[in-house]
Amino acid sequence: MTKFKYQRKIFFADTDAAGVVYFANLLSICHEAYEEFLTNFYINLQDFFSSNIIAIPIIHAEIDFFKPIFCGDLIIINLNIKLINNKVFEISYKIYKDDILIATALTRHICINPQTRKTQEIPVIIKDNLSI
Amino acid sequence: MTKFKYQRKIFFADTDAAGVVYFANLLSICHEAYEEFLTNFYINLQDFFSSNIIAIPIIHAEIDFFKPIFCGDLIIINLNIKLINNKVFEISYKIYKDDILIATALTRHICINPQTRKTQEIPVIIKDNLSI
Amino acid sequence: MTKFKYQRKIFFADTDAAGVVYFANLLSICHEAYEEFLTNFYINLQDFFSSNIIAIPIIHAEIDFFKPIFCGDLIIINLNIKLINNKVFEISYKIYKDDILIATALTRHICINPQTRKTQEIPVIIKDNLSI
Amino acid sequence: MTKFKYQRKIFFADTDAAGVVYFANLLSICHEAYEEFLTNFYINLQDFFSSNIIAIPIIHAEIDFFKPIFCGDLIIINLNIKLINNKVFEISYKIYKDDILIATALTRHICINPQTRKTQEIPVIIKDNLSI
Repeated sequence: MTKFKYQRKIFFADTDAAGVVYFANLLSICHEAYEEFLTNFYINLQDFFSSNIIAIPIIHAEIDFFKPIFCGDLIIINLNIKLINNKVFEISYKIYKDDILIATALTRHICINPQTRKTQEIPVIIKDNLSI
Repeated sequence: MTKFKYQRKIFFADTDAAGVVYFANLLSICHEAYEEFLTNFYINLQDFFSSNIIAIPIIHAEIDFFKPIFCGDLIIINLNIKLINNKVFEISYKIYKDDILIATALTRHICINPQTRKTQEIPVIIKDNLSI
Repeated sequence: MTKFKYQRKIFFADTDAAGVVYFANLLSICHEAYEEFLTNFYINLQDFFSSNIIAIPIIHAEIDFFKPIFCGDLIIINLNIKLINNKVFEISYKIYKDDILIATALTRHICINPQTRKTQEIPVIIKDNLSI
Repeated sequence: MTKFKYQRKIFFADTDAAGVVYFANLLSICHEAYEEFLTNFYINLQDFFSSNIIAIPIIHAEIDFFKPIFCGDLIIINLNIKLINNKVFEISYKIYKDDILIATALTRHICINPQTRKTQEIPVIIKDNLSI
C-alpha cells in the first residue's frame, strides 16, 4: 500500500448552478491526485495513458459526499493505492477541507491490452514503480 | 418505481487520450438522463437545481464499466428511480450499446434545505410528480 | 458553404456557480453541432477524430455572448461551414433561444498529418462529403 | 495593466481521443489562471463568482493554438489584465511549454447586475484590488 497527498483549489469550472462542486467533477479531481502520484514516480503520463501495449482503465468508481464544496475551497486528497490481484489495483481517496473529511472516493483499475481489450497482468515494472 | 429511457450520442468532448469515454463523464451523461426524466414531468430544471428552498444533492454515486465506449457510439440509458425513505431517493442506470449492457451506475440523492444544508423531507409534490 | 441545424437542451453540468452556462462549455456544445453535422454525412466520428493519417484540429476558436443561458434552456445552433483554402475550413455558429440570437461562435480547422503534425491538403473525399 | 504567472500540469481529463488537449479545455485552464490571479489579491472566489450584486461575466473569448498539448505537459500561462472602459476589462493569456509560445487566448468581461443583467460600472474597490 502506497500513500500520497494532493492539494487542489476548487475552480469555477468545477461548480454547477447549485453553487457547489458538480458531483462527477470531484471524481476527476481524484484522478488528478492519481496522476500527480504517477508523476511523483517519474511516470510519463502521456505514455502511461495512451500506450498501445498496456492500459489500466477504471472498471469501477464510487464517491460519497459528506459536506458541500464551494468555489475557492482548498481541499487535500489523501490517496491510498493497493494491489487487489495480479491484474487489478484499487485507489481510495479521502478528501479533506480544513482537516474535516468532506468526501471519500474509490477507483478500481484493471490491466488490459488496449488493442484486444483482453485483461493481462500488471507489468512488474509498474508494480515496482508504484511500490504496490 | 418509475422508469425512463434516454438516448445519447458520445461526443468528442466525452473522450480522453486513451480513445474512450473518460470515466467520470459517463456519470455526467447519466445525470443528463435524470434531467430529461425531470423535464418529462414538466419540471423546470433551473428552478429545480437552483432553488433556495429545496435542494436534492447527490450524496453517493457509483459506476461500473463492462465495455469501452467510443466517440460516435449511440448509447441508451434505462433509468429507474425509487424512494428509499422520506428524505432519500436512488436512481439506477443501465447503459446499453447495440442492446449490450456496457455499464451500470447509481446515484443517491438526499433532500436538504440549501441554506442551512440540513436534511428535510422530499416535498409531496415532487414525489407525486415523479410517481415515486 | 453548407448549413446545418442542431437543437440541444442545456444540462446542469454545463452550468457554473453563477447560475448560467460556463463560457467554455458553449464552445463544446458548438463542437457537438459540428459532430452531428459530420454524422449527418455518414462520417464515422471515431475514425474521423482518431485517425493516424488525417487530423483536422482547431487552430482558432472564438465566442461572443449576448444573453445568459440557463439550465433547462433549449437552444438551436445554426452551423455554417466554408472552405478558406486547401488546408483550412471555418465553421460559424449562431446560437438561438426562442428565436433570439444569444451567442455566436467560430472555429477554424487546419488539416495535418497527426504523426508529423505538418499541414496537408484536406482530402477531396472529405471536401466532397461535406460539400465544401 | 497587471501581470500574473500560472503553472499547470495537463491532466488526462483535459485531453480527447485525438490524444491532445480538447480545445475548449484550454480556455478553462486560462480561467483557472484568472482565478489564481484573483486569489492572489485575497479575493474570495465564491463571493466573487456568486454575488447577487456584482457579476463580471465573459462576453467574448478567443484562443489560438500553435502547437499540440499533451497529457502530462507542464504549461505556464502569463496573464495580463487591462481596463478597456469603466464597465469592461480584458485578459490576455500567453501559454508556454518549455519556453515556447504554444497558444494565446483572450477573455473580455463586462460588469453587470446579475439580477437585472444590466451593465454597471466596475466597483472602484475591484479596480483598486486588481490594480487596473
